[in-house]
Amino acid sequence: MISFESDYIAGAHPALLKKLTETNLESLTGYGNDPYCESARQKIRAACACPEAEVFFLVGGTQTNSVVISSMLQEYEGVLSAQTGHINTHEAGAIENTGHKVLSLPQTQGKVSARSLKQYLQDFYQDANHEHSVFPGMLYLSHPTEYGTLYSKQELQDLSCLCRSHGISLFLDGARLGYGLMSQNTDVSLSDIAALCDVFYIGGTKVGALCGEAVVFPRHNMPRHFLTIAKRHGALLAKGRLLGIQFDALFTDNLYFDIGSHAIHMAEQLKQIFRENKIPFYLESPTNQQFVILENGQLEQLKKNVLFSFWEKLDENRTIVRFVTSWSTTQNDLDALAQAIAAIQHE
Amino acid sequence: MISFESDYIAGAHPALLKKLTETNLESLTGYGNDPYCESARQKIRAACACPEAEVFFLVGGTQTNSVVISSMLQEYEGVLSAQTGHINTHEAGAIENTGHKVLSLPQTQGKVSARSLKQYLQDFYQDANHEHSVFPGMLYLSHPTEYGTLYSKQELQDLSCLCRSHGISLFLDGARLGYGLMSQNTDVSLSDIAALCDVFYIGGTKVGALCGEAVVFPRHNMPRHFLTIAKRHGALLAKGRLLGIQFDALFTDNLYFDIGSHAIHMAEQLKQIFRENKIPFYLESPTNQQFVILENGQLEQLKKNVLFSFWEKLDENRTIVRFVTSWSTTQNDLDALAQAIAAIQHE
Amino acid sequence: MISFESDYIAGAHPALLKKLTETNLESLTGYGNDPYCESARQKIRAACACPEAEVFFLVGGTQTNSVVISSMLQEYEGVLSAQTGHINTHEAGAIENTGHKVLSLPQTQGKVSARSLKQYLQDFYQDANHEHSVFPGMLYLSHPTEYGTLYSKQELQDLSCLCRSHGISLFLDGARLGYGLMSQNTDVSLSDIAALCDVFYIGGTKVGALCGEAVVFPRHNMPRHFLTIAKRHGALLAKGRLLGIQFDALFTDNLYFDIGSHAIHMAEQLKQIFRENKIPFYLESPTNQQFVILENGQLEQLKKNVLFSFWEKLDENRTIVRFVTSWSTTQNDLDALAQAIAAIQHE
Amino acid sequence: MISFESDYIAGAHPALLKKLTETNLESLTGYGNDPYCESARQKIRAACACPEAEVFFLVGGTQTNSVVISSMLQEYEGVLSAQTGHINTHEAGAIENTGHKVLSLPQTQGKVSARSLKQYLQDFYQDANHEHSVFPGMLYLSHPTEYGTLYSKQELQDLSCLCRSHGISLFLDGARLGYGLMSQNTDVSLSDIAALCDVFYIGGTKVGALCGEAVVFPRHNMPRHFLTIAKRHGALLAKGRLLGIQFDALFTDNLYFDIGSHAIHMAEQLKQIFRENKIPFYLESPTNQQFVILENGQLEQLKKNVLFSFWEKLDENRTIVRFVTSWSTTQNDLDALAQAIAAIQHE
Repeated sequence: MISFESDYIAGAHPALLKKLTETNLESLTGYGNDPYCESARQKIRAACACPEAEVFFLVGGTQTNSVVISSMLQEYEGVLSAQTGHINTHEAGAIENTGHKVLSLPQTQGKVSARSLKQYLQDFYQDANHEHSVFPGMLYLSHPTEYGTLYSKQELQDLSCLCRSHGISLFLDGARLGYGLMSQNTDVSLSDIAALCDVFYIGGTKVGALCGEAVVFPRHNMPRHFLTIAKRHGALLAKGRLLGIQFDALFTDNLYFDIGSHAIHMAEQLKQIFRENKIPFYLESPTNQQFVILENGQLEQLKKNVLFSFWEKLDENRTIVRFVTSWSTTQNDLDALAQAIAAIQHE
Repeated sequence: MISFESDYIAGAHPALLKKLTETNLESLTGYGNDPYCESARQKIRAACACPEAEVFFLVGGTQTNSVVISSMLQEYEGVLSAQTGHINTHEAGAIENTGHKVLSLPQTQGKVSARSLKQYLQDFYQDANHEHSVFPGMLYLSHPTEYGTLYSKQELQDLSCLCRSHGISLFLDGARLGYGLMSQNTDVSLSDIAALCDVFYIGGTKVGALCGEAVVFPRHNMPRHFLTIAKRHGALLAKGRLLGIQFDALFTDNLYFDIGSHAIHMAEQLKQIFRENKIPFYLESPTNQQFVILENGQLEQLKKNVLFSFWEKLDENRTIVRFVTSWSTTQNDLDALAQAIAAIQHE
Repeated sequence: MISFESDYIAGAHPALLKKLTETNLESLTGYGNDPYCESARQKIRAACACPEAEVFFLVGGTQTNSVVISSMLQEYEGVLSAQTGHINTHEAGAIENTGHKVLSLPQTQGKVSARSLKQYLQDFYQDANHEHSVFPGMLYLSHPTEYGTLYSKQELQDLSCLCRSHGISLFLDGARLGYGLMSQNTDVSLSDIAALCDVFYIGGTKVGALCGEAVVFPRHNMPRHFLTIAKRHGALLAKGRLLGIQFDALFTDNLYFDIGSHAIHMAEQLKQIFRENKIPFYLESPTNQQFVILENGQLEQLKKNVLFSFWEKLDENRTIVRFVTSWSTTQNDLDALAQAIAAIQHE
Repeated sequence: MISFESDYIAGAHPALLKKLTETNLESLTGYGNDPYCESARQKIRAACACPEAEVFFLVGGTQTNSVVISSMLQEYEGVLSAQTGHINTHEAGAIENTGHKVLSLPQTQGKVSARSLKQYLQDFYQDANHEHSVFPGMLYLSHPTEYGTLYSKQELQDLSCLCRSHGISLFLDGARLGYGLMSQNTDVSLSDIAALCDVFYIGGTKVGALCGEAVVFPRHNMPRHFLTIAKRHGALLAKGRLLGIQFDALFTDNLYFDIGSHAIHMAEQLKQIFRENKIPFYLESPTNQQFVILENGQLEQLKKNVLFSFWEKLDENRTIVRFVTSWSTTQNDLDALAQAIAAIQHE
């Protein structure tokens, strides 16, 4: 059965597996101190146009969010997030497990606006009792968001500016960053992100790696003893090579960006299939996650031949579902999908 | 200057101070094992018509909320609360500090409804990925709420019933319980609360004590080794007598309820003063907290002679402010307030 | 029955109760912002000869230890303590509850030495893998210790010097500080402590207050937003006056020191009684806690008439027990004790 | 340069990489719900002779220790460990980060005895104030220990029996279990461990996998919603296949045990080399970690050609160092080591 269930349904991009195999018997020191980790760090610095950046490899997204957020917040601070943000909804309370509150901001299509952030900050500091409340210490964004949407450069600049003027760190969750950077509708580059954020990560797990996220601190602002902090969260890999080798491969010969481009190309074809079959979109997403509205009969038919994700019920008769492309999506997958959809249209 | 700033502006009800003084030189064992604590427990059991209840004395409200909630939740659970609930807004993240998320429910005048709770639970369990989310393990209510409003017996029964059918504990924050129980507009008694809740507390700090909250577990359901858990949160008082003696006095000769009645009587007069002066109420509160809307000019005038709390700006010209009565409010206070308000009306 | 069970068996020193009663009806603002708290802070600053000290009132000892320690440590740090330190043995894991490890140091009669601290630090930094271990971030001392013993000024200076050269905070738990300062065998004053420590507290609960500990940060080094941090730990009292008024009384007319002197005077008499009756001491304590060795038969006899604390079994036939004096110990208590002990000697 | 630095210096056993490569393009569901995870679980159940065991895959050792320990302890409990246990020394406080104290037991060559455990429990429950202390809720053992030593079946039975009679869980850290099971000096089998422990894990990272530890709950005692708990600790891998496929390969055709045997065979040869060269052992280890004592001159010479781990200084002139074999150690490595050691002997 063809699957558009997520961007982590396949193993690793073959180039990564190849490099893991080639280097397999080399004897390397552990915990991220091997030459492949160092090489990957250098390549990431270059890609970010940020030669002084500190780069640390962690294993997965939820882990990265909780280690980064808790290490950068003061005890009396919480993290601001879109109400629909991953840390606020689908991470099983991992942030609260570190003792910090997720402070919810209103959102539109998964995005927060400088306007609503400004309002939040104004209300907070006007409250005579704000010392009895959690201080906003960080803004968490995901780019692409949970809904596949992207911030424009102007939007990021406005948020960044507001954060800096209030002493709030800006953290960008880039679990799907590769797909965001290669969207046809973005003016945001990796170096823009490095310039505007205080910390961000370049997602590996959803962009071709078996696992791994590269956290980037662009301005010598990695929390002191970050390795110890990661260990304390159970996030330090003994065989750090597993992460270093994969990111070294991802940032060799433009692979990370090529993976992104391929998935975007597939997503654009996928959008065309839905459009041609008059299946409406829930929202306009410029990346590899596409949300469409199926009538319940269509949904039942389609799921006999295709795997995709249930998102939420729109009403009694219609359901929002998600289709995702990735580096592993093939033209065959799309052709089969086109057939399957055409079939349900004609029943 | 007369003050309606809060219900903790004075010391203790004189009967409590008297009893503390009379017993002061008695040599008593610590940590709540003295006969006054035991006597207070018995009187509270009687007042709750719950002879088998377990009663534990803690020092303050935020402490009580965090110790009770964290000791009753499983690791994978969070606590549901009105979006405006004290634990969600003005406790500086004390719940999250214990590792648990506060799950926000929509509210009306500070209250949550069985309908919105039902919707939340339905959405939660319908989500195919709910194992990646925080499980709802407890419902937190305050009675009276942050806005002085009260649940009806029917509302509490509906919420209780829904909680029980979903294995969710029901916790009632009674920081101002005395004022709620003696409202002229309530059909809820202490024994109703004991019957419907899994845990609740009878507030002392805001109802005549120097400090102290009596946590009641009505059905032999106090978490095991609760004393050790309290200690671990820094919440176990060496001189437990301080709490036991005060609650013993509060539950002697109906004092707790008399204190409530007095404040309600004062609040009704206070409402009358505002009504007569055509100062609108923000909402209808049947307890000791009253929220009125002042024009900015009125506010500036009034605060020269009266202390009250800023609540929030309603719009450019008007502000919501709070007036609170308590056991220590006197007829003189009210007469002076009436004069002060009349004065601003005639300027 | 006479009791030497602890220094928290009675209520408050009468002067404190008197002041609480006199001020009871005054309308005061909450959370430590009232004039009595401010007056108490000023008097404590003067007593410490530290005009710029920041002073914060908390409720009890375990709470103070956990709030202070967790607010001053970095995430990757733990707190060093004598293996017998209160935080390591009898606080139910309150420090670990804040996420920090208690790092155990060898002790002699409850005290740690600069020598063993130096050894610990040397071993730690020589370990090539020390980044995989908890960093020592603070040294916790109690003065008097769990065994009633005291540090000399030289010992404190040596420890302080070592701490400063390693970037380690020095925290002195003064739950019984009044008794230590007034010992006949000490050369350590309150201003010495303020000069040598980074933070310490002046115990109230065990030195005449109903509750309350005054935390002193001598060098403008109170953690930022400490009030919010305290709230988050459930440690902020609504009626802050309860603490402020008591400490204001304790630091008026030398009362805190007079209480200490009285208890020391009583303890010296108590020691004399044991000496005269040839009951051996477990160790030499210069403060208000005395540890003696009773044969099991003596213990059984004595406990019929006197309350004291079981400490630990020395061997099959002998037990270490603790007798404590306080501000509330009277000459009558001692005379009765002398009789009771003489009685068991002659059986 | 040849390396005996650790058992995680190489990548994965080639059979694991092969299987990862073969299955790479298969489209699989995430989070451990794929057929390879299920197959691996079945094979592990069979290997443990425990058909009803629940098996959960986590990424690394520290993570596994903290997730398992915190999910099985009650709030008022801590975990007992040898003073030298990994959780007490080299996990950066990961256990304390979950709020639980590590309770230190005396050890001999890394092992704890039933005798010292019994003493601990006796002292604890005899203490009249034990409710003010952390309750012992679990015993943590590692097998092999930090020093490569092993428990005998009798020793495990005695500890297990004592734990069960006191309601204490027994948790065995098997990060190097494969090497322990295949030691020539053990009478402990995998099914013995499943019968005697309440939870244990079969280490992958140090026994041929890129990463991964298989946690086994033998008696339907996996904490409820363990997946959610793992997620909350950042320990749930999106591509669960990475762990499932590797463990499936490890438990196919006896590979896990063959890897263990090979490393033991290499370790026996390594011991012979040291013996022949009269280099003394620090202790007798029957597994893949060997601790020898080098004179400082020898150490300097040897480290020019061989990588090994510094353990601790024995005295001014001698140092304890560690040599480790693994699945990747070759006969060539040993021959080169023999030459290098012979060389330093003749200088």
